[in-house]
Formats: sequence, C-alpha cells, structure tokens
Amino acid sequence: MTSESEGMNRMRKRLHEILENVSPHDRAIHIFDVFMITLITLNVLVVTIETIPGLHETYLLAFTIFDIFSVIVFTIEYILRLWVITVSPAYQRPVLGRLRYAITPLALVDLIAIAPFYIPLLLPMHLIDLRFLRILRLVRIFRIFKLSRYSEAVKTLERVLYNKKEELAATFFILILLLIFSSSLIYYAEHDAQPEKFSSIPDAMWWGVITLATVGYGDVYPVTVAGKIIGGFVAIIGIGLFALPAGIFASGFAEELAQRKMQCATICPHCGKPLSPTYHFHPGETVQDTRKQE
Amino acid sequence: MTSESEGMNRMRKRLHEILENVSPHDRAIHIFDVFMITLITLNVLVVTIETIPGLHETYLLAFTIFDIFSVIVFTIEYILRLWVITVSPAYQRPVLGRLRYAITPLALVDLIAIAPFYIPLLLPMHLIDLRFLRILRLVRIFRIFKLSRYSEAVKTLERVLYNKKEELAATFFILILLLIFSSSLIYYAEHDAQPEKFSSIPDAMWWGVITLATVGYGDVYPVTVAGKIIGGFVAIIGIGLFALPAGIFASGFAEELAQRKMQCATICPHCGKPLSPTYHFHPGETVQDTRKQE
Amino acid sequence: MTSESEGMNRMRKRLHEILENVSPHDRAIHIFDVFMITLITLNVLVVTIETIPGLHETYLLAFTIFDIFSVIVFTIEYILRLWVITVSPAYQRPVLGRLRYAITPLALVDLIAIAPFYIPLLLPMHLIDLRFLRILRLVRIFRIFKLSRYSEAVKTLERVLYNKKEELAATFFILILLLIFSSSLIYYAEHDAQPEKFSSIPDAMWWGVITLATVGYGDVYPVTVAGKIIGGFVAIIGIGLFALPAGIFASGFAEELAQRKMQCATICPHCGKPLSPTYHFHPGETVQDTRKQE
Amino acid sequence: MTSESEGMNRMRKRLHEILENVSPHDRAIHIFDVFMITLITLNVLVVTIETIPGLHETYLLAFTIFDIFSVIVFTIEYILRLWVITVSPAYQRPVLGRLRYAITPLALVDLIAIAPFYIPLLLPMHLIDLRFLRILRLVRIFRIFKLSRYSEAVKTLERVLYNKKEELAATFFILILLLIFSSSLIYYAEHDAQPEKFSSIPDAMWWGVITLATVGYGDVYPVTVAGKIIGGFVAIIGIGLFALPAGIFASGFAEELAQRKMQCATICPHCGKPLSPTYHFHPGETVQDTRKQE
Repeated sequence: MTSESEGMNRMRKRLHEILENVSPHDRAIHIFDVFMITLITLNVLVVTIETIPGLHETYLLAFTIFDIFSVIVFTIEYILRLWVITVSPAYQRPVLGRLRYAITPLALVDLIAIAPFYIPLLLPMHLIDLRFLRILRLVRIFRIFKLSRYSEAVKTLERVLYNKKEELAATFFILILLLIFSSSLIYYAEHDAQPEKFSSIPDAMWWGVITLATVGYGDVYPVTVAGKIIGGFVAIIGIGLFALPAGIFASGFAEELAQRKMQCATICPHCGKPLSPTYHFHPGETVQDTRKQE
Repeated sequence: MTSESEGMNRMRKRLHEILENVSPHDRAIHIFDVFMITLITLNVLVVTIETIPGLHETYLLAFTIFDIFSVIVFTIEYILRLWVITVSPAYQRPVLGRLRYAITPLALVDLIAIAPFYIPLLLPMHLIDLRFLRILRLVRIFRIFKLSRYSEAVKTLERVLYNKKEELAATFFILILLLIFSSSLIYYAEHDAQPEKFSSIPDAMWWGVITLATVGYGDVYPVTVAGKIIGGFVAIIGIGLFALPAGIFASGFAEELAQRKMQCATICPHCGKPLSPTYHFHPGETVQDTRKQE
Repeated sequence: MTSESEGMNRMRKRLHEILENVSPHDRAIHIFDVFMITLITLNVLVVTIETIPGLHETYLLAFTIFDIFSVIVFTIEYILRLWVITVSPAYQRPVLGRLRYAITPLALVDLIAIAPFYIPLLLPMHLIDLRFLRILRLVRIFRIFKLSRYSEAVKTLERVLYNKKEELAATFFILILLLIFSSSLIYYAEHDAQPEKFSSIPDAMWWGVITLATVGYGDVYPVTVAGKIIGGFVAIIGIGLFALPAGIFASGFAEELAQRKMQCATICPHCGKPLSPTYHFHPGETVQDTRKQE
Repeated sequence: MTSESEGMNRMRKRLHEILENVSPHDRAIHIFDVFMITLITLNVLVVTIETIPGLHETYLLAFTIFDIFSVIVFTIEYILRLWVITVSPAYQRPVLGRLRYAITPLALVDLIAIAPFYIPLLLPMHLIDLRFLRILRLVRIFRIFKLSRYSEAVKTLERVLYNKKEELAATFFILILLLIFSSSLIYYAEHDAQPEKFSSIPDAMWWGVITLATVGYGDVYPVTVAGKIIGGFVAIIGIGLFALPAGIFASGFAEELAQRKMQCATICPHCGKPLSPTYHFHPGETVQDTRKQE
C-alpha cells in the first residue's frame, strides 16, 4: 500500500514536471509541448475555417471527430493538472489548493476550453436553442489562449504589463474620459447637420473611439466647421493617446532589463565586501551589516 | 465662544481631511469617496444617455430630480471646500487664500460643474434662448473631470505631463507649423482638380490634420500626382509626429521612476557617511557639510 | 572718424544682441521678439485666409499694404542680420563670414521669406505668367519657419533630431525600401482585378504609403485574397514603422536629459576631489591629474 | 607557379577588401560602392517604372540591354564574392566555407537578384508560361535588398531588431492571437447583418488586421451595436499594439547606446585600479583578480 502510494507520488511529480514545463531540456516535456501546441493550433484553425460557407457541412464528420478527440485530450489534461498541482508548494492542500488553482487565469482558460462541449449535456433540453449553441461554439475560440502557456517571451510581456498595470489603467481611464468628453462635444456640433449619424452621445462614441484610435473608417465624420475643429483636436489628442502607453512600456521594458542585469550580486572591488548597486540601495539593509563588521 | 470656535476649527480640520482625501485608510474618507465617484459617474451617464431620442421626454421627472439632487450635493461640496481650504498652509488667508484656491484647475472644474444650473436663474429672461440652454446642458459634461481627483495613477500621468510640458508644447507647435505648411502645399496642388474639397487653405487643414494624425476618413484625399506625392510625405511625417511625444513620454516615465527609486538616501558602504547618488549630486550641498565634519 | 567707427561698432554689437536674442531678460530684445512673432504670425494668417474665395478680392488693398509693409520689415531685418553677423566669432570675416552665414538654414529661410516680392521685379516680363506668380505666393508660406528661431523647446527637439539623424535616415531608407517592395507585390496581386487603381508600381505606391503610414483613406484597397494577405502584412509592418522612430526619439530624449544632468561637476564626498560620474569616465583624463596630486 | 599563386592570393585579398567594404577611406572601395549603389538603384527604378502602361513596349530594347548588363555585373559580383570569401577566417574552407557563405541572407539576396534571368534558360520550354515569367520579373524587385549592404545605420537597426527578436516575436504572436480572437467575435456579431462582408472568420480577419493596425480603409466596418462595441475595443487594443514594439525598440536603442558608451574601460579614481562599471559587474570575473593583486 505504501509503495503503491509512493509510486503514485513519483508519477504525480513526474506528470507535474511534464505539465508545468519545468525543465526545458527534458525530452518527454518537449514531445508533450509540441503535441499540445499542434493540437491547440489545429483547434483554432478548425474553429476558424469551419465558418467558411459550405465547409462545415462537407466535413461535418471530420470536424466532429476532431472536436470530440480534442475535448477528450483537453479534459484529461485538465483533470491531470488538477490532480498533480498539489506537488507545487503554493497549492499544497488537497481541496483548497486545487480550488485556488482552479481560479487562476490559466486554469480558467483550460476550463472554458472544454466547457462548450459539456454544457449542452448538462442543461435541460428546452434551454438549448440554436443561438445558444452558436455562442458555445464561439467560446471554443478561447482555446487559443491555452497557447500563452508555452512562450517565455509572452511571459515577459505579461510581467511588464503587470508591473505597469496602474499606469495603463490610468491611461485607459483618461481614454474613456476623453472619449465621453469628445463624443459629447461632437454630438452638440453635428447632431443638427447629421441627425442620423450623430443621433445621441452614446451613438457619437462610435465616431469618438474610431477617431481617437486614428482608425478613421470614414462611415461617420464631421461636416460642420465646429465639428471639423473638434474632430481635428480629437485626432491630435489621439496622437498623444498612442504616445502615453508607448512611453509606459518603454520604461517598463527598461526596468525589466535593468532588473535582469542587476540580479548578479556586485562585490566592492576595493575590499571584496558585498556592494549594493547605487540605485537599488535601501538604507539599513546590507550597509548596516557592513558597518558592524568594521 | 472660544470653545465653540475650537469645535468649529476641529470640524473644519476633519472636513478638510475628508474632502482633500488625506489618509487612505480612513473609513469616513473612503465612504465619502465612493459616494462622490458614484454620483459623478451617474451624472456623466445621465448627461450621456439623456440624448438618446425619446429617453429625455420619458424620464424627464427622474432626470430633473437627479440633476437638482446632484447640483445640491456639488454646491454643498464646493462651499465646504472653500470654507475648509484655509486649513491648508498654502491657502491660509481667509479671503485671498480662498480666492487663490478658487482659480486652481480642480476648483474651477467644481464651479463649472454647478454653474449651468445657476446661470439661467441669474440672467435676465430675454437672454436665455433654447440654444443657450443647450450649451449649458453640454457644460454639465465637464463634471466628468471631477473624477480626476480620485485616481493616484492619473496624478502620476499629470505629473509626467507637467514635467514635459515644454517639449510637448514644442511638439504641438511643430505640428501646427507642419499642418499649415502641408495644407498650403496641398491647396496649391489640389485646388484646381477638386475646387470644392480644397476650396481654401483653412479648408485644406481638415485634410491636413486628418492625414497628419493618420486618421484618414477618406472624405478628402488628393487625386493629382503632385497632391499624392505631398500626401505621401505628409503621411510619413505623421509617423514622426507619433514618435516625438512617445519618446518624450518614455523619458518622462523613466525620470519619474528614477526619482521614486532615488528617494531612499544612500550611505557610503566604505565609511557609512551619507552619499548622494551620483546623478543627483550638486556640488556645495551636502558635500560641504560632510567635509566640515571631517 | 574713429569715434564714429566705435559708435558703429557699439551699435552693431547692440543690434546683434537684439537680433540674435542673446539675453532673455533684456527689455528691448523682448519687445523686438514680440513684434517679430506677431508680424510673422499675421503674415502666415494672411497667406492662409487670403485663399478663402472672395476674401482676396474684397480686401485686396489691405492685403497688399500689409504684404509690402512685411517685406520692408523682413528686408531691413535680413540686411541688418547680414551687417551685424561679423560680431559673432564664427562669422568674423566681412565677406566670407557673411556669405557663410547667408547659407545657414535660418538665413536661407529669411531670404526665401522676402524673395517672392523681388523676383517679379528682377525677371523679364514675358517669364512672369499667372502660374509663376501663384507659386511665388505659395513660397510666402515659408515665412512660418522664421518662427522656429524664437522657441527654446523647438531647439531642444532640433538637437535631438540632429543627434539621431543617422538612425532616422536609416528608418526613412527602410521605409522607402519597404514601400517599393510592398507596392511591387500589391501591383502583381491586384493589377488584374483593379487595373485602373493599380495601373503601375509607381501608382501602387500611393496605396503603399497610405497603408504603411496607417492612414487608410479607403480610395484604394486590395480586393483579391492575395492582395488582402499582402495588405495585412504591410499594415502590420506599418506598426513597426511607427515603433522604430518612437524608440529612437525615446533614447534621444533620455540622452539629452542625462547630458543636462551631467553638466554639474561632481565632487568626491570623501575627499572633495573632483569625481567623474561612472558612465562618463574616460581613463587618463581627470583621474591621472588626481593621482599626481596624491 | 608559386609567385603566380601568390599574385592570385594578393588579388583575392584586395578584391575581398573592395567587395566586403573593409576600409571606408579607400578610393577603389568608394568608387566600387558608388557604382554598385547607382546600378542597384537604377535597377529598382527600371523594375518599377517598367510597369507604367506603354513604357515597357516603347523602351523594350533599352530595358532589355540594361537588364542583361545588370545581370552580367551582378553575376560577376556574385562569382567574385564566392571566390574571395575564403580570405575571411569564418569561411576559410574552399568548399564548405563557400557553401556556408552562400546561405547567408546577403548572399541569398545576391543569388535571387540574378536567378530570374537564368531560370528560363535552364527549365524545359513547356514549363515557362506568361504567368511564370511575370513572377520571375517580380522577383527582380528583391535586388533592392542588395542596398542594405551599404548603410552603417541600417546595420545598427538590424542589430537592435536582432537583440529584441524574442520580444518582437512575442508581440507578433500576441497580435496573431488578438487578430484571430477579435475576428471570431466580430464574425458572430456582424455575420447576420452583413453576410457578404463578414462571410467567415478568415474573411473577417481582413477587417481585424486593418482595424488593429488602425488603417481603417472603410470597406468593411461593423454596423450592429455589438459589432461597434467589439470594434471599439479592438481599436483601443490597436493603440496598445503600437505601444508594445515602441517600448521594446526604446529599450533596445537605449541598450545599444549604453553599450557603445561602456566600451571605454573605467579606472577607480581613488586607487587607479581598473573598475568595472556597476551594472556590468559580474562577480568572480575581474574582481577576483584585483583582490589577488592585493
């Protein structure tokens, strides 16, 4: 019984290594990764090309078999991830740890990836109409986010985004502020001249966002002098809206880079004592120790 | 009498703390903030959706009651802010301090937020026509800027914008220069081919700003060879116009970050004496003191 | 005779101070600056609004008088600048110095600003047709660049542009390369489907530049599958084309900032000896001297 | 025989110097460079203007002679490059070295530049149709990339791009992810309202890429409320997609600059010993040596 449990533990550890992509030079991990990336990519491809008129009907059987196969693989993967996650010290506890893991973004993506298959089986018949099924099929496109697990550089980007989340949120807040403000102005300037295109402020926001983001489809644009002056200023403000996150990301990447370089501990070349780099220095940390040694 | 005045003073200090959002962990401040943010957001929502055809007439009473309630709250808030501001050392003097506070951007926004309600009551009847009332209703959208008081990250953005105001103003000046210059060129190139779309240089500026900001609605564009060559160069210059503020903001955020990190005083690891960080060092400041101690 | 020449010299020096904007706190300089900035701005305004149909004919006399007045002022300014420039050590020599000054960008702008007035007077009658006169009137818009002399921040931008001129030229070169390349591809993809819109590669470049700069008027766009795939990639490359100069400017402004901060000489807090900041340190410069003193 | 081989070797070395652009002050190199840049530029010009209707037929002989001349020069250049490359230590071996050189990007561009001329001569007649010949003529536009060999600043850009290739690839990966995701969403929102414009998800990707890159031709745009909300978010995400590479390039150029400045070795101002700059310092490298000397 104990040896069986030990075997289980060893297997769980090994599976955890494979699933969580611990060592990059392990062959089994590499094979598993390539298989999963291929399967996810094929899934995205199928969800995408399935919508081409005629294709869905012609290859219905092939698409259905591939979908069932994918859901089986993703379900096994999801269950295994839940089973082995207790190996990780952060999710050690059998029930609470697994629940806490289940609500992490990556685990939620894994759940959303398989849910569209099981929901129609669980719900009462009369709730399932064509419209609902179509939304469920749309949800399968979320499988694409399963890919983000496999790129190191994407994780760097995510870290930079995370570090700068407050500045980015503030930029988004200012964008919303400017959007509402400029849509209100343009509504008052253009409503009389183009009542059907600027019928209300929420309606004018479509013009606002398309102009602030400098997309400019050309389906709505001001025609009055006042509207053109407002539109010109909104377009110029749009330039600034591109510049703000660019500046935020620039400082974010510079920080990321500085931190990577800073990880090598520096030693004073005069005396061999540890020397905190100037702009990471916090008084009363290593320095106090150094002084005591003197 | 004195104790009464003391009570007044204590109350004024407390109100100042709440209104100026001094401590982030105070419960009364938190409740007041949430209430104000909700009220401002609802106001912006009402001003916005009110313009949807039919909605204004249907919910006229609700909208009117809500507007009167908001104006009362904002008026009380404005008067209280003026009353308690003398607590702050910068605006200590009863009359002059209050006047100086009243012309700060945030106080002006507070005044503009309530003004549209009182102006029709103060002005003689014959001056108030429908057009004027509509502009007054538009002014209520300025209430949205009351929100900027409550976000820490927005204040960081404002600081970066303020620090870089000269470079940004120069960028704007160059934009205006390029706008006038390219509009003049395109006018001479396109006026004969499209006299109604490029009727004059001020008219051509609409094309200029929409092209420089890379919006490109497609309502006006050059059709002659000369006009297309000018348009191509203007579009390329537009790329540079996005890059300039992006570079300015990037250095602005990097500076902000460096300053935050630099706030921790650094001590020389060799001798324990305070050591100004290299690139904040101004000769004859702390150094002179250090030498005297020797 | 000598005292007269001395008086001339003193006057020349004073005029040089005023014209070249040496001291910012001098009252005469300030008055001269405000007068010139106002005159240039009015000139730009006149050149611009003159093109509004009807306006030119109505105010012909006023516009002509203003133009003659401006040309007289600008001519006197130009002659005085040429006269006093020998005060500056860089252009000391009476003839060669003045000639060398005359070909600097700012002096050329000053010349171009007055040339349109004198050229018709100097040329034989039969060369002057309406078309030629119109181009001359267009040239007056160059007067706008006389303004760039008066802004300190614009000079900073110019310095950053100058420091990064090689990287920016390389970006422009790559843009031209990509423009020719993508226009050739789209021509081969779209020529058969839209022969009148993509009639030749030079013609397709209009599409190329408007797409690479993400303007997208919508007058020409690919309709074939191959053309849309090429167009999609060109649009994505356009994103990179915005990012390149943004990154270049960001490092340019950071450099500018670092240099400004570095100008304050740093002294070693331990011993009061001059201490070169770490990343400006060149071996064998100040250090050698310091060691000799020891 | 030996002296002949020695002469060959000397000639090979000299040719290698000229072809690989070793010294910038050599006159022969300068003349060769100017000749090649002119020839390549003329080639690009010819390939481009040849497509103007009528021009090809009129100047058929001139174009053909110029093409044959160019191919002869480029062929001789290619053969000479292959012959002299063994002078370079990296490609020393006669056969393997030359093969390894032949697959470098610059050598491949050289091959592609001449291939379109030789392929029709080598292939059997029945394989060569008009469509195939047209593609071959298109391939000649690749000659433009031969120019990239001659610009120092382009090499700097290439180095920055190379250093940041992982972050840029991750940005591209995220772009593809967002493109597929937003195209799927808009397909489900707009398919019913505009079945011919959003006929399938791959079809909707044309809208997706044109919106994410903020080009916005205006040939396809959402018309439903759900579609407009999705479109608005996609446009806002487009702003971020511009900011990401801008931030990456900004840190890339800053790094490039820092490295160039860091190349001057720094000496400790206190004791004259070599001092590694703080943020390039790796423990156990130069420091260990320094301590041993003590």
